[in-house]
Amino acid sequence: MRDFTTDHRWLSINTATVRKSRGVDVPLIDILDACAQRGIRAVAPWRDQVAAAGLANVARTLKAHGLELSGYCRGGMFPAADAAGLQAALDDNRRAVDEACALGSPCLVLVVGGLPGALDGKAAHKNIALARSQVADGIASLLEYAHERSMPLSIEPLHPMYAADRACVNTLEQALDLCDALDPARSGALGVAVDLYHVWWDPKLQAQVQRAGQDRLHAFHVCDWLTPTTELLTDRGMMGDGIIDIRQARGWVEAQSFAGYSEVEIFSSTNWWQRDMGEVLDTCIARHQSAV
Amino acid sequence: MRDFTTDHRWLSINTATVRKSRGVDVPLIDILDACAQRGIRAVAPWRDQVAAAGLANVARTLKAHGLELSGYCRGGMFPAADAAGLQAALDDNRRAVDEACALGSPCLVLVVGGLPGALDGKAAHKNIALARSQVADGIASLLEYAHERSMPLSIEPLHPMYAADRACVNTLEQALDLCDALDPARSGALGVAVDLYHVWWDPKLQAQVQRAGQDRLHAFHVCDWLTPTTELLTDRGMMGDGIIDIRQARGWVEAQSFAGYSEVEIFSSTNWWQRDMGEVLDTCIARHQSAV
Repeated sequence: MRDFTTDHRWLSINTATVRKSRGVDVPLIDILDACAQRGIRAVAPWRDQVAAAGLANVARTLKAHGLELSGYCRGGMFPAADAAGLQAALDDNRRAVDEACALGSPCLVLVVGGLPGALDGKAAHKNIALARSQVADGIASLLEYAHERSMPLSIEPLHPMYAADRACVNTLEQALDLCDALDPARSGALGVAVDLYHVWWDPKLQAQVQRAGQDRLHAFHVCDWLTPTTELLTDRGMMGDGIIDIRQARGWVEAQSFAGYSEVEIFSSTNWWQRDMGEVLDTCIARHQSAV
Repeated sequence: MRDFTTDHRWLSINTATVRKSRGVDVPLIDILDACAQRGIRAVAPWRDQVAAAGLANVARTLKAHGLELSGYCRGGMFPAADAAGLQAALDDNRRAVDEACALGSPCLVLVVGGLPGALDGKAAHKNIALARSQVADGIASLLEYAHERSMPLSIEPLHPMYAADRACVNTLEQALDLCDALDPARSGALGVAVDLYHVWWDPKLQAQVQRAGQDRLHAFHVCDWLTPTTELLTDRGMMGDGIIDIRQARGWVEAQSFAGYSEVEIFSSTNWWQRDMGEVLDTCIARHQSAV
């Protein structure tokens, strides 16, 4: 297992972590600059932030700073209420693949979507099995496009509390079942993003990490689960502030020869997004060393 | 599958659903009276409500009204930070078994507990595997006591969002693994309480309900998952107001010859607990017919 205690060469910052500084939106370029200043070597940007800054501008800035990507957030959201919606989702996912290629990302992270309309509080139906089958079809179709462009797709199982509205793939086992079905040859074109916030609770986590193996472990995300957690989406904790045994889980992942970045992804509307970006990044570095 | 559309003979009210009326605590005896007035035949009371009303008084009132129990809430909370805590939990669970016997309950529902101290925001450790092993030991020990008194124990898997602080048994599969380990003969002394709020998202739900079979399906709880869900504990929805396909799941349970009550358990601090108890009970009856 790698020693993270003395430096932060394997730290990546998911840019949602510093989406806001003192409650105010931060332009992506400023985030990239602040990361580079601190010797952070990798980031995982979000599409909306990239779009606001301009794709070419982001690509140039990454290059100028020598910053790598640990992933690109995100494709997915496949289920839809009708054929036009399914097609629109697929088109949008192809654009996400193109952007990931332009930014030199090692993978496109997929948050697969839930019941169509549920995110707006207006679910079109209650048939989660149908949503799951649309997810499988969507990934199968996108996989062809992505594979031609050598862009791996990484299914991120989301916590079951997001099953209705954000992702109906909710365990690592379920994600790996999809990988087995859609890429039985284990070509490397399809794998998983393991975010501990979503999977830490799973009694089968260690076994499924072993099942994934190095070729399907595309990304490793960390933050912490707070007790109490006051809200479902934006009350994630800084590593060390909650109850996830992060180091143990990293050990399981690295036992499969995972040698990539440990990506910090914290949504925190009332705490970290209210602090200064510099303080948050410095804290990420410190906690990467002490708690990851 | 039973037809629920024309009457409510198989409706049970978990008394937490009307714990408050217009925001004010309701004495358990008043809840029992209100249920009986509406021809509701069964309830599932909570220990704190029973303690406040007096065990003998509650038993008398149930008898006078001809009310059955669909379960008794609840035993569990096994993990502890030290031996004294483990023993105290076991002692308390034995008292819960005695109370369940005194009230003629068909089972004692177990919410097994999480990391010791986490419910107060002060987790003693991060070792969920240890908590899970203490749960297995606790149930094994309690099972002997309960079996002698012919009181079935029903493990209730809780939604993974409660894994840290309320229950580290989080899927039906995990609960049934415990049943297999602790009661391999399927004596009927150990089974599960299936609460759809906790398990609706699980892609393995139907398969695990089949695995459980009639002898291990002790109880069936319903409410609904709202989109959005604004809070983790007390934002449950009334059946029909959310995205759970309740009737489909009831079909799976009844395909295993489950013929017990459909127990309504809704924690709703900002909606149903703010309404009048009579309105809530009438709504439960109507939705039991239209959405369960």
